[in-house]
Amino acid sequence: MNVEYVNPFLSSLVNVLGTMANTKIVPGQPRLKKDEQARGEVSGLIGMIGPTTKGSFSVTFEESLALEIMSRMLGEKPDSINEEVTDMVGEITNMVTGGAKRILGEKGHEFSMATPVVVSGKGHTITHKTTGAKILMPFDSDFGKVFIEVSFDE
Amino acid sequence: MNVEYVNPFLSSLVNVLGTMANTKIVPGQPRLKKDEQARGEVSGLIGMIGPTTKGSFSVTFEESLALEIMSRMLGEKPDSINEEVTDMVGEITNMVTGGAKRILGEKGHEFSMATPVVVSGKGHTITHKTTGAKILMPFDSDFGKVFIEVSFDE
Repeated sequence: MNVEYVNPFLSSLVNVLGTMANTKIVPGQPRLKKDEQARGEVSGLIGMIGPTTKGSFSVTFEESLALEIMSRMLGEKPDSINEEVTDMVGEITNMVTGGAKRILGEKGHEFSMATPVVVSGKGHTITHKTTGAKILMPFDSDFGKVFIEVSFDE
Repeated sequence: MNVEYVNPFLSSLVNVLGTMANTKIVPGQPRLKKDEQARGEVSGLIGMIGPTTKGSFSVTFEESLALEIMSRMLGEKPDSINEEVTDMVGEITNMVTGGAKRILGEKGHEFSMATPVVVSGKGHTITHKTTGAKILMPFDSDFGKVFIEVSFDE
């Protein structure tokens, strides 16, 4: 797993949350994910297929941040994660992966995106079943944390 | 969403659990999934991309059935869902989707599979963010229930 594959997802998430939700997030230190735990209450997942590899991307929000983004994007703030919030997380997953796809395409790494699946639940786990390393990238904000995970088959 | 797209996943799951885990499952009545709730404690998800459509598949096991299959496939039965169980669910997700891919390919519906992602957690939700109907198909067994969900963009 090359950092060249991860940075486009990082910059795309910063861009999507900044432009769509006026929310500034600060990237932390990327690391290998060794356990299965998701780092929040709601996650968007998407599969990716390229000519030479395939993999998956996920973005996990702490509930407080997901609800704040909901409020900023749609002008309403639900009390907890509902279907409108999972719709929003699915859209963000699509937008972030689409942005990363454009950046990677310009570098000659083409891939196609499947449709997103959104998972929620306190204490849920997420495991990318790929042969490559699982990269976990944390971000902090004034309203809570968000994490992305990217992994491709080697 | 045509039933032609769903039956290959049904027959592939029956076949995989029968041959790999010597476990007989009995299909129930397929229905539209209108809520977000997953019907068990551990789910395998995978994205699919074809030339004209894309979508996602999931298979959700009740914990009791997942642990029994684990015992039958690998000769050991853990007390709860651990990383070996999620590995097994990832493998089953790959095998079921691969079987369905072969059947659909013979009918002229080609698609490529991404890598699986496995999610676990009591009360987790799964929402396929596609534009098409979400088909939920229940199966019963002597050890618990298993459910598949298939959805493609229209």
